[in-house]
Amino acid sequence: MSEMNATPENASIARIGEVLRDHQSFVLISHVRPDGDAIGSQLALGFSLMAAGKSVRLINEDGLPDNLAFMSGSDKIELPPAEPLDVEVAIALDTAAKPRLGDNALHAASKAKIWLNIDHHKSNPSYGDLNFIDSSSPATGQILYQIITQLDLPLPAETRDAIYVAVSTDTGSFQYPSTTAKTYEMAADLIHRGLNVGTLNSQTYDNHPYRRVELMRALLNTLELSADGLVANWELRDQTRIDLALLPEDSEGLIDIIRAIRGVQLAVFFEELEGGKIRVSMRSKDKRLDVCRIALEFGGGGHALAAGIRMTGPLEEAKALVLAAIRRHIEAAGL
Amino acid sequence: MSEMNATPENASIARIGEVLRDHQSFVLISHVRPDGDAIGSQLALGFSLMAAGKSVRLINEDGLPDNLAFMSGSDKIELPPAEPLDVEVAIALDTAAKPRLGDNALHAASKAKIWLNIDHHKSNPSYGDLNFIDSSSPATGQILYQIITQLDLPLPAETRDAIYVAVSTDTGSFQYPSTTAKTYEMAADLIHRGLNVGTLNSQTYDNHPYRRVELMRALLNTLELSADGLVANWELRDQTRIDLALLPEDSEGLIDIIRAIRGVQLAVFFEELEGGKIRVSMRSKDKRLDVCRIALEFGGGGHALAAGIRMTGPLEEAKALVLAAIRRHIEAAGL
Repeated sequence: MSEMNATPENASIARIGEVLRDHQSFVLISHVRPDGDAIGSQLALGFSLMAAGKSVRLINEDGLPDNLAFMSGSDKIELPPAEPLDVEVAIALDTAAKPRLGDNALHAASKAKIWLNIDHHKSNPSYGDLNFIDSSSPATGQILYQIITQLDLPLPAETRDAIYVAVSTDTGSFQYPSTTAKTYEMAADLIHRGLNVGTLNSQTYDNHPYRRVELMRALLNTLELSADGLVANWELRDQTRIDLALLPEDSEGLIDIIRAIRGVQLAVFFEELEGGKIRVSMRSKDKRLDVCRIALEFGGGGHALAAGIRMTGPLEEAKALVLAAIRRHIEAAGL
Repeated sequence: MSEMNATPENASIARIGEVLRDHQSFVLISHVRPDGDAIGSQLALGFSLMAAGKSVRLINEDGLPDNLAFMSGSDKIELPPAEPLDVEVAIALDTAAKPRLGDNALHAASKAKIWLNIDHHKSNPSYGDLNFIDSSSPATGQILYQIITQLDLPLPAETRDAIYVAVSTDTGSFQYPSTTAKTYEMAADLIHRGLNVGTLNSQTYDNHPYRRVELMRALLNTLELSADGLVANWELRDQTRIDLALLPEDSEGLIDIIRAIRGVQLAVFFEELEGGKIRVSMRSKDKRLDVCRIALEFGGGGHALAAGIRMTGPLEEAKALVLAAIRRHIEAAGL
């Protein structure tokens, strides 16, 4: 029945249940620059454990992004405290590699005796004491739904809505190939549990700051097509970020605009970061064009259809290197 | 159990089943300028009836739009033939008013002895001999899923995929308030029946012609905010339409980009048409700001949250008049 790609290291859900039941204090952490699945996963499991009477802290290296502040209970998301927390269990959620939790968050969780690692990223090296990595799940939020319902843990309204936002944002609103029948069945069940689908989606998707639209315009004005229209890329200069007073989350999902161009198989977003580093985000439409493999060449990582790199600048050089690697992979794939 | 808003005129599904079983030849028609739910509904019921051995013609006044040509079986969609078809039953799908079927399509169906009218638009006056109007359904495609499964009619792959596209496009990918638990359960069932969610969504949403992205850029470069950020508007010049070789469907849904700006309660799209006429599309986020009432002042119409006008140009004059009316309505609403 299960579509789970079990790795040998995966703990059973029953064993995870024991750890949750047998301890009283938890810190839940997700990755830097958190997205909907990161914050959603923290809120989902966090409010379930709180409803079960546990003491829970929700920590994120970068805090709560403005665009997710609508989420019920999100005021519980804290920046890492300076001193390590007195907690028994640390739970890493939706975080493919331990350093991606952030130095301050790791310091805050350093007194934890047990590390639990729950994630859906294929590349996750199972860095926890107990791990539950299911790369067949489209979102960590869906894994948590499975764990919470299977263990019969409480599922309060905050958990219900957070699971939905986590999964909706990580599937491009139930569109990506990772979306399964279970994903839709889960959404139906959450509605039966009282979720308001119209309001929640409106808060998630119809509430962009004006600067995001300005960013969209700035990006579109740099759009380039190459490799006979198979590759689309655009870029963001640090100066534009300053001029528009952009926040990190403002660019989230915008790459889908150029990914959606007919004929484009690979979309690339080049971002100049403060200090001259370059962030590269890649999205593929074709399984034969595994962007994770391209990212690995530059020390990056991710999934076959969505991967990223951080590399040294300047932007022109990074662009030339990455676009050349992409051309090689396109040729090798015979596209 | 049923969430259907039955009107007194609605036929039972059993009665519809009798009509479908007892006749051999059918013409299925949807509205002019067809969208995903219109074409999807025709293909869904059409291929089900064909698989049941019936003779079926699928007619649309404007034919198959380019952006839906990916749909399996869509080559069966024909322009209306000049001579009336020899068919027993005509079925109007997703069409709120009979004239919206188009003059040529109505002429083609004029020999039909029985008219069946299946739709989800509240305003549908039940113009068929048999009617099934369910305004609680987010799409006509979902009504057809209910009818087909309840009557145990064949559900071939074309029907399966067409239902999904109809419902997905009419719910903004499972986001609008009209989306119910049944909608998600239906999607899960269609996946269990073999639907490929990744491929189908990619074909539906990730397949825009490049000119649509160019249009997006051109529109963004005309974006204006007014009334303290409550109103966003952009415009399309006839010359841009010519320069980019735009088709009517290229602008579909783009107004959602500016409707989604935080604080914006009303989005307006001004389009210069061939011959100098101006088309105005308005979307409201706030029920107190009834854009249908604004449209009526200029001889237009629509719904409270989505309405349109056709008026004489030039563009600057039309803009000034409509934006002034909007300001009056905003003041009257006390926003």
